Amino acid sequence: MDVQRITVLGAGSWGTAFAKVLADAGRDVTVWARRPEVAAEIRDLHGNTGYLPGVVLPPTLTATADPAEALGGAEAVVLAVPSQSLRANLTGWRGLLPPGAILVSLAKGVELGTLKRMSEVISEISGAPQNEIVVVSGPNLAREIAQEQPAAAVLACTDHERAVAVQRACSNAYFRPYTNTDVIGCELGGACKNVIALSCGMAAGMGYGANTMATLITRGLAEMARLGTKLGADPQTFAGLAGVGDLVATCSSPLSRNRTFGERLGHGETVEQAQQAAGGQVAEGVMSCSSIRELAQTTGVDMPLTDAMHRVVHEGLDPRAAGAELLGRQNKHEWS
Amino acid sequence: MDVQRITVLGAGSWGTAFAKVLADAGRDVTVWARRPEVAAEIRDLHGNTGYLPGVVLPPTLTATADPAEALGGAEAVVLAVPSQSLRANLTGWRGLLPPGAILVSLAKGVELGTLKRMSEVISEISGAPQNEIVVVSGPNLAREIAQEQPAAAVLACTDHERAVAVQRACSNAYFRPYTNTDVIGCELGGACKNVIALSCGMAAGMGYGANTMATLITRGLAEMARLGTKLGADPQTFAGLAGVGDLVATCSSPLSRNRTFGERLGHGETVEQAQQAAGGQVAEGVMSCSSIRELAQTTGVDMPLTDAMHRVVHEGLDPRAAGAELLGRQNKHEWS
Repeated sequence: MDVQRITVLGAGSWGTAFAKVLADAGRDVTVWARRPEVAAEIRDLHGNTGYLPGVVLPPTLTATADPAEALGGAEAVVLAVPSQSLRANLTGWRGLLPPGAILVSLAKGVELGTLKRMSEVISEISGAPQNEIVVVSGPNLAREIAQEQPAAAVLACTDHERAVAVQRACSNAYFRPYTNTDVIGCELGGACKNVIALSCGMAAGMGYGANTMATLITRGLAEMARLGTKLGADPQTFAGLAGVGDLVATCSSPLSRNRTFGERLGHGETVEQAQQAAGGQVAEGVMSCSSIRELAQTTGVDMPLTDAMHRVVHEGLDPRAAGAELLGRQNKHEWS
Repeated sequence: MDVQRITVLGAGSWGTAFAKVLADAGRDVTVWARRPEVAAEIRDLHGNTGYLPGVVLPPTLTATADPAEALGGAEAVVLAVPSQSLRANLTGWRGLLPPGAILVSLAKGVELGTLKRMSEVISEISGAPQNEIVVVSGPNLAREIAQEQPAAAVLACTDHERAVAVQRACSNAYFRPYTNTDVIGCELGGACKNVIALSCGMAAGMGYGANTMATLITRGLAEMARLGTKLGADPQTFAGLAGVGDLVATCSSPLSRNRTFGERLGHGETVEQAQQAAGGQVAEGVMSCSSIRELAQTTGVDMPLTDAMHRVVHEGLDPRAAGAELLGRQNKHEWS
């Protein structure tokens, strides 16, 4: 199985950067952008200044605002739209997907309301079996990848042959993808990390350093693994690129919106003030902490950090009180 | 089992900070310092300006330069001397150790030549059974702990009762210790992380950001877990505080000497130049990459990152060539 002709649906920062990765790996890539002016800029000026300022895109990369034109003849279709709008977008594209094309998901999140993972939503809407969908995750801050900084990623699919086809299609001198068969673990890692990033930002905003951040990352990873294992994931996944890797990149980078949002809360701003400062947008972790908490409660999994973040963000708990409470829990064994 | 009277042997930054942790947990603590003036400063002025400038130590903390005086009546003895001089130091103290005292190790490293872990060295010299030695590890940058920033740690001992006794002795409002029975894993994590920190510094020195650091941490963790599993450790340990936790804190903090040393190499300095800039000292990762590589070779474990660091530091391989080589390896499954 080999894929040469690939369509990327979505021209945000990660969609555009991933399209560049594929083109740099020698693939024929078409990007679909919602706005015609963005498509024209990618196609004619080899740039996407709104999302990746300063980045020169490969001249072989083309783009259109017409989904039918974008999808014609595609052997693989990369879904690069925000997780909470994936269902609506995909419903509109359903009739245009070429039969047999490999569906690849860049979306990270748990759908509000249904509590479904993105590959579940994709399978439900497209009719493709879940084992045929390839999920991309890992330490992949879009801007750094667009700058060709070396990074690894995970391609998760229970059908190993499809994962390998996508692996071949995106391997290049700066992007090193590994295959993995644990789709559940890779998707949950990507969804949970934003909540932890929010907590790391909050700690940094309160003046704490590397020990506290490392402790939050490690204990956040432990509760993410508890939830994942309960839902059928392989615990080892969380020690890998879609767990630790993604978490460390998101939590330590000033490019992360979740971290920045948390920092403002740590400085004493209210959620409303932080939201105003972010141009009216709420960080993903603010929504995810509630859906993941609900998932934890329905499955009976203890997630003290996610629970504390939910109470800080939605119930007015003071960040310092939350920290003291987490430290004051009963002494225990690391894995109990 | 309860310990109240505790002696800390070594007044460097981590020994002093851990003595403060114990005193703040209500224990009677005596620090032994090699230099009488350091002992006097801790005892009379409640400070250790050479190692922890600006930190006020608890007035209950006392100190002496006389090992016999320090050790008299100790129910627990904390070994806080550098790993490569632990054997010589402990040999001198052997006759002074109170029978039955719990031995606690803060030393991280693999002894050059013998390739032994620190608890193996302690057991060999003191005659205490290995299962009675408690190993402390985790995301514990000394300066941040001395500033009472929240952090967690791991206390590893196969005898759970002893681990719990030390856990009670060091739990306080800013220090949260977890017990763990995997001594091998906790010690190897502490030894391997300095090599990864060196590589993270090198990547930062070459201008790379969070993705590359997160990738190095994750793949470093994977090879550390491969080595550990081969040597009898529980792979889960590397996903915990003594693995991910310690690694993230060390790799992301500008306080880490290994990271700083690596940064200089990434800027194009030679090992000799970086050593001169560090006041003549060589970073621990520079020694460890060779002893850990030797351990990997004798056990037949693939450790490409450690191997590359050894060749950069000791065989003159260019850091950029090392990076390109790591990315150019054959595509594979994440855990193969």
